[in-house]
Amino acid sequence: MQRTLKVADRAKVSAFEVMNILDRVAQLRAAGRDVISLCAGEPSDGAPSAVSQRAAQIHADGLPLTYTPALGIRELREAIATHYKRWYDIEVSADNVAVTTGSSGAFLLMFLSAFNAGDKVALARPGYPAYANILRTLGVEVIELNAGPESRYQPTVELLEAAQLEHGELDGLMLASPANPTGTMASGEELEALTTWCKDQGVRLISDEIYHGIDYPEAGTDTRRSVSAWELDTDTVVISSFSKYWGMTGWRLGWALVPNDMLATVDALAGNVALCAPAPAQYAALAAFTDDAYLEAEVRVAEFARTRAAVLNSIDRLGWGEYAPADGAFYLYADVGSKLGSHANSAAYCAALLEAEGVAIVPGNDFDHVKGDTHVRLSFAAGYESVTEAIERIVRFQGDA
Amino acid sequence: MQRTLKVADRAKVSAFEVMNILDRVAQLRAAGRDVISLCAGEPSDGAPSAVSQRAAQIHADGLPLTYTPALGIRELREAIATHYKRWYDIEVSADNVAVTTGSSGAFLLMFLSAFNAGDKVALARPGYPAYANILRTLGVEVIELNAGPESRYQPTVELLEAAQLEHGELDGLMLASPANPTGTMASGEELEALTTWCKDQGVRLISDEIYHGIDYPEAGTDTRRSVSAWELDTDTVVISSFSKYWGMTGWRLGWALVPNDMLATVDALAGNVALCAPAPAQYAALAAFTDDAYLEAEVRVAEFARTRAAVLNSIDRLGWGEYAPADGAFYLYADVGSKLGSHANSAAYCAALLEAEGVAIVPGNDFDHVKGDTHVRLSFAAGYESVTEAIERIVRFQGDA
Repeated sequence: MQRTLKVADRAKVSAFEVMNILDRVAQLRAAGRDVISLCAGEPSDGAPSAVSQRAAQIHADGLPLTYTPALGIRELREAIATHYKRWYDIEVSADNVAVTTGSSGAFLLMFLSAFNAGDKVALARPGYPAYANILRTLGVEVIELNAGPESRYQPTVELLEAAQLEHGELDGLMLASPANPTGTMASGEELEALTTWCKDQGVRLISDEIYHGIDYPEAGTDTRRSVSAWELDTDTVVISSFSKYWGMTGWRLGWALVPNDMLATVDALAGNVALCAPAPAQYAALAAFTDDAYLEAEVRVAEFARTRAAVLNSIDRLGWGEYAPADGAFYLYADVGSKLGSHANSAAYCAALLEAEGVAIVPGNDFDHVKGDTHVRLSFAAGYESVTEAIERIVRFQGDA
Repeated sequence: MQRTLKVADRAKVSAFEVMNILDRVAQLRAAGRDVISLCAGEPSDGAPSAVSQRAAQIHADGLPLTYTPALGIRELREAIATHYKRWYDIEVSADNVAVTTGSSGAFLLMFLSAFNAGDKVALARPGYPAYANILRTLGVEVIELNAGPESRYQPTVELLEAAQLEHGELDGLMLASPANPTGTMASGEELEALTTWCKDQGVRLISDEIYHGIDYPEAGTDTRRSVSAWELDTDTVVISSFSKYWGMTGWRLGWALVPNDMLATVDALAGNVALCAPAPAQYAALAAFTDDAYLEAEVRVAEFARTRAAVLNSIDRLGWGEYAPADGAFYLYADVGSKLGSHANSAAYCAALLEAEGVAIVPGNDFDHVKGDTHVRLSFAAGYESVTEAIERIVRFQGDA
């Protein structure tokens, strides 16, 4: 019998439903339709001008941009360490900073370095689908925690205890605060409870902090809420990025704070899987830590806050059900079950909304294969005017249904 | 018993010996020593000026550089497809081109998509160590083929047949032509024998073609020798890059030609593991396919050829033994066993050479854990003057030993 070529089963992940939406957005726009897309998890303004100018200068100078050290140029590792002093008032050694190709590169490198095939890693459902997809592709068993509004869609010690009773000892916990798709955050106390439990149980906590800096004071306070896992426990892995706060999504630059016990392994493996993060972005990103760049980013966060307020104020008019409180990031994740009308699920609802009113939002199934059929994610990163106009169109769409 | 945190066994790869050499180079240079480093597998001149200028313009315009489609911007995929018409006279559809974060990103994505954990993939020893390190980290069994000078250090059907007899059915063959560290190439006939055998056996051939374009006519001819696996069989995976021919190592941009049966899987997985390749590099790299950029690259290849000739003409004076013929790329891989003198192995020889004469070359163990102790790799990408001066120093070093 002749053997035939195969494709690896482990690589077979579901395509995202949003891809169909995005394809249709492109078609409609090509046909001249005015489409507002609230799908993208990215700020639309791009990098701070100090970063763009630095990048332009680097290229105009024509300097050779050869491989950097696998964990990044020293100056950038030091600047990132200093950023932790500025934002969190903690001392981080540049030796523990690994510069990566976006947070994606950090997830891959850290998952490989922390977990063997067959290990069990818990994460909240709903959640960012790439966590589970990468972990499963690497042979790690994903334990989904059914995280609902009662815990702000975040993992809790109770959920973790229950998961261990059902599935056996966990090896890791993937945490995202602020989270995607919900924007919810674990408070400092909740984060402390989780890090303490993980340490007691020998569970490696991976903390996705890519939305840090884009957070909003609790009603009635003016305190912003990002707490880093490294404020509590340096055995955790922190992952962050220049993509969100600094708006540099396409540049593919992120970092990880690597615990001491993982450093030698990460250092030896990093060059094998990626050689280094993009060199032009590394040099340009040094300008992200200037006062001008922080200021420019803060102006954007204020604009996100204004748009968020408009979205939250529209919930009653939209008639949507339960929704996540959007403590940070730029997402509203909400139950549209009572507004589905004749549509079988939120995917059909989103498709019809796009056709009828030219508004694109993401159906919930991409984030929650159990309850996503009644949910949608609306990104308000597109800006105040686009988002408020989109809300008027959604209200009209639902009224016509 | 309290469980303690662990680091994943699968991530534990050997650090490269060259890292010790490079650390010492940095120390010596910081102390004011004049050091010639022939370690780096990268051209020192950087990108073609058309690419740097395009990049400077993109950043000066301050365009938002947001996520691109996971497989790259359409214009770049089309430009790469056209490149195959230009160089190899074959028709490639842009749909089969996946733009990746360097060839590293392509290896990872293609290894995941082609091979399950437990699969067996053959590759030549000596070889680029990251192939085996990535494969093993992903749970793939690596079958090393003992490839010596009798087959130009390339895999052969005979070696593959013997490997299957010994280890059972193979799932993949990793081929590199020109290869690192040897620079040797499989001829069109040899490549055809390998692709035919792989097709017959249901073995997926992954062809690393990142050094294509940097190749030298056989003595007495003026025909350059790069043959793409896709000229012979589009069920193979071709991996290439902007790093070598166009000198864009630090930019982290490469691509793969993806067989039809793998396309859907690769398309769905790509965004999960990397989101997209760096956007600034993608836009700038369009300029790599202009006549000016090709011309600039060709001038460099001519300079590599001049340096290569000087290196090959020095072999007798160096008294080195068996060496790979350096059909392409910019490496000389040679047996220095008879010149080790009092040094226990090539690592000790390289360390002593660096101290005595300020010349850095790479010990063979990084590429061949069996026979590397008597071999070294000398990169002649650093340019004619540096390389010829280094050879004088090596001759002096060996004379003093």
